[in-house]
Amino acid sequence: MKIAILPGDGIGTEIVAEAVKVLQVLDLKFETETALVGGAAYEAHGHPLPESTLKLAKESDAILFGAVGDWKYDKLDRPLRPEQAILGLRKNLGLFANFRPAICYPQLVDASSLKRELVSGLDILIIRELTGDIYFGQPRGRRVSPDGHFPGAEEAFDTMRYSRPEIERIAHVAFQAARKRGKRVTSVDKANVLETFQLWKDVVTEIGTQYPDVALDHMYVDNAAMQLVKAPKKFDVVVTGNMFGDILSDAAAMLTGSIGMLPSASLNDKNQGLYEPSHGSAPDIAGKGVANPLATILSAAMMLRFSLNQPEAAARIEKAVDAVLTQGLRTPDIYSEGTTKVGTAQMGDAVVKAL
Amino acid sequence: MKIAILPGDGIGTEIVAEAVKVLQVLDLKFETETALVGGAAYEAHGHPLPESTLKLAKESDAILFGAVGDWKYDKLDRPLRPEQAILGLRKNLGLFANFRPAICYPQLVDASSLKRELVSGLDILIIRELTGDIYFGQPRGRRVSPDGHFPGAEEAFDTMRYSRPEIERIAHVAFQAARKRGKRVTSVDKANVLETFQLWKDVVTEIGTQYPDVALDHMYVDNAAMQLVKAPKKFDVVVTGNMFGDILSDAAAMLTGSIGMLPSASLNDKNQGLYEPSHGSAPDIAGKGVANPLATILSAAMMLRFSLNQPEAAARIEKAVDAVLTQGLRTPDIYSEGTTKVGTAQMGDAVVKAL
Ligand SMILES: CC(C)[C@H](C(=O)O)[C@@H](O)C(=O)O
Ligand SMILES: CC(C)[C@H](C(=O)O)[C@@H](O)C(=O)O
Repeated sequence: MKIAILPGDGIGTEIVAEAVKVLQVLDLKFETETALVGGAAYEAHGHPLPESTLKLAKESDAILFGAVGDWKYDKLDRPLRPEQAILGLRKNLGLFANFRPAICYPQLVDASSLKRELVSGLDILIIRELTGDIYFGQPRGRRVSPDGHFPGAEEAFDTMRYSRPEIERIAHVAFQAARKRGKRVTSVDKANVLETFQLWKDVVTEIGTQYPDVALDHMYVDNAAMQLVKAPKKFDVVVTGNMFGDILSDAAAMLTGSIGMLPSASLNDKNQGLYEPSHGSAPDIAGKGVANPLATILSAAMMLRFSLNQPEAAARIEKAVDAVLTQGLRTPDIYSEGTTKVGTAQMGDAVVKAL
Repeated sequence: MKIAILPGDGIGTEIVAEAVKVLQVLDLKFETETALVGGAAYEAHGHPLPESTLKLAKESDAILFGAVGDWKYDKLDRPLRPEQAILGLRKNLGLFANFRPAICYPQLVDASSLKRELVSGLDILIIRELTGDIYFGQPRGRRVSPDGHFPGAEEAFDTMRYSRPEIERIAHVAFQAARKRGKRVTSVDKANVLETFQLWKDVVTEIGTQYPDVALDHMYVDNAAMQLVKAPKKFDVVVTGNMFGDILSDAAAMLTGSIGMLPSASLNDKNQGLYEPSHGSAPDIAGKGVANPLATILSAAMMLRFSLNQPEAAARIEKAVDAVLTQGLRTPDIYSEGTTKVGTAQMGDAVVKAL
């Protein structure tokens, strides 16, 4: 088994170091290899996803990813910007199934901007399709507007698209995930306006008939955004496209108050996966030793479970994280009065100790 | 001056009746004409936006709109569904500028799902472009997938597009609105992924230089969704495209806890406008006399201000609505212990009395 370690930019290096520390004490048999990605790779090799990094990722069973991006790369041409690395990895490895749990940790319930009763016990799973939709659809570009409101003017355009098999496979992922939890799937679309999401709705409905034990409902994306802020606990598994999933999964993660705690997994059809925290590279606090490593440590746990077939080790990590929270240890992002403020490395050490 | 009254479906008839009652006591000089729209028009004329209704709308200075839609029309072909009426009105009248205030009424602060301190005093204005983007972009449809992950499979597709003049005019609307309030504009895009929104960002930045007194910042849509739930008061005016605006404006409206109170305006370049509540047709409570008419009454106030040049009358209505809330009157949707529960007509009557 081989794990590619891609720390990336900003706090990426610090938080991934803690996750690696945790993996090491578990004494499992795997090889690791580290490579540059994002802005760091651009600085060293002139590209955010160098050939060597992509090759390593492809050869590995799993990728532990930190975060990429920094304001200082904002002026680069789009293909050279750090976030292209993550899009390139998704595309090249076919990582179509993105798992984004939105869990409210009981110890952190008061960190949510929502009222306690609305989030306490919250546990939803957003499944976002990750290799289709308007993210990758061709054609796209700039041109002289052929028609519309201002024919002859400069315009930019993109193509949203989903094929039936793309929708089928992500629907199966969602129904199978729901079977292992609350047995409910909410498919989020905009079928009242978009052709793409009328097909989405039709296909998810069809696949749903193969899962009579799972309840399926459909919601328009605008309504889903409302229901998430009104009564998030009504959801179990939410499945949606790449663009809507980008927006809703971030909103849901933030609602929990636990965003510094939330891992994510992006899988392909061979269970090869990329594992990363739900939060970003936070360049403002990079290098200060204050970033919260727990989302990355929990991403490593997801990796053990989904790609490396080590569910017991995964559960041990999750229990250890729970233990350090119960001990009252908090990095600044989740600190509140009466708890103990710790730095990145101390938090990682505490998890190691709890193991 | 002529106002087209389009009550529509569900609670539409009831709430619009109260707004008309309020307009009448103001004793202003205007003509009104009522027409069917949405499911009601489909039942009577076989189309959600009959020629006669469209003609009336075009000839009027303003349209007071209730709501459209009902589950029972879900099985109709898309062009015959109630919501096509609203899309058709936007397109045919060129109503490109949608104003969606998200205000938290002090009397209703506890109805928000957010903690009191995060929403008390909240007053943001979302300006959504309403006639472009993926809502109307051609080509769209179903086809055999020419390439992508599954060439040869059935696929559906839509086109996202914005031309430079479309972005320019909505940017001007946003900067001018910001001048009259907090002097800050947040432009929401997804320039890191979409060509359309790279042009959006470029053009908004250019137009921004003409408004040196207004501060402009840019936010990715996923981050905007997070910041809205984390710290909504940080926003003043938010400007974005049709699709992102659909999602964010609904989320923001729900966050306030005052969604039954929030009006909206959709204007074209001649200040002709369509005015409607931010909420939907609520078929489940239609005909029971319990719907909240205040969002529609406040939409009538917006209409007086924006399209009918009657700012004093608009302010009078707004003051009257404030007064009935302070009196403790509440329809069931905003009811809480210690207040007085009233029905739709009683609420309308109370506003009339407060005038
Ligand atoms: C960095 C960006 C391209 C990316 C996305 O939009 O998918 C990010 O927001 C995410 O959700 O992983
Ligand atoms: C009914 C629907 C087509 C419409 C939209 O998506 O614009 C609605 O959600 C709105 O926001 O007015």
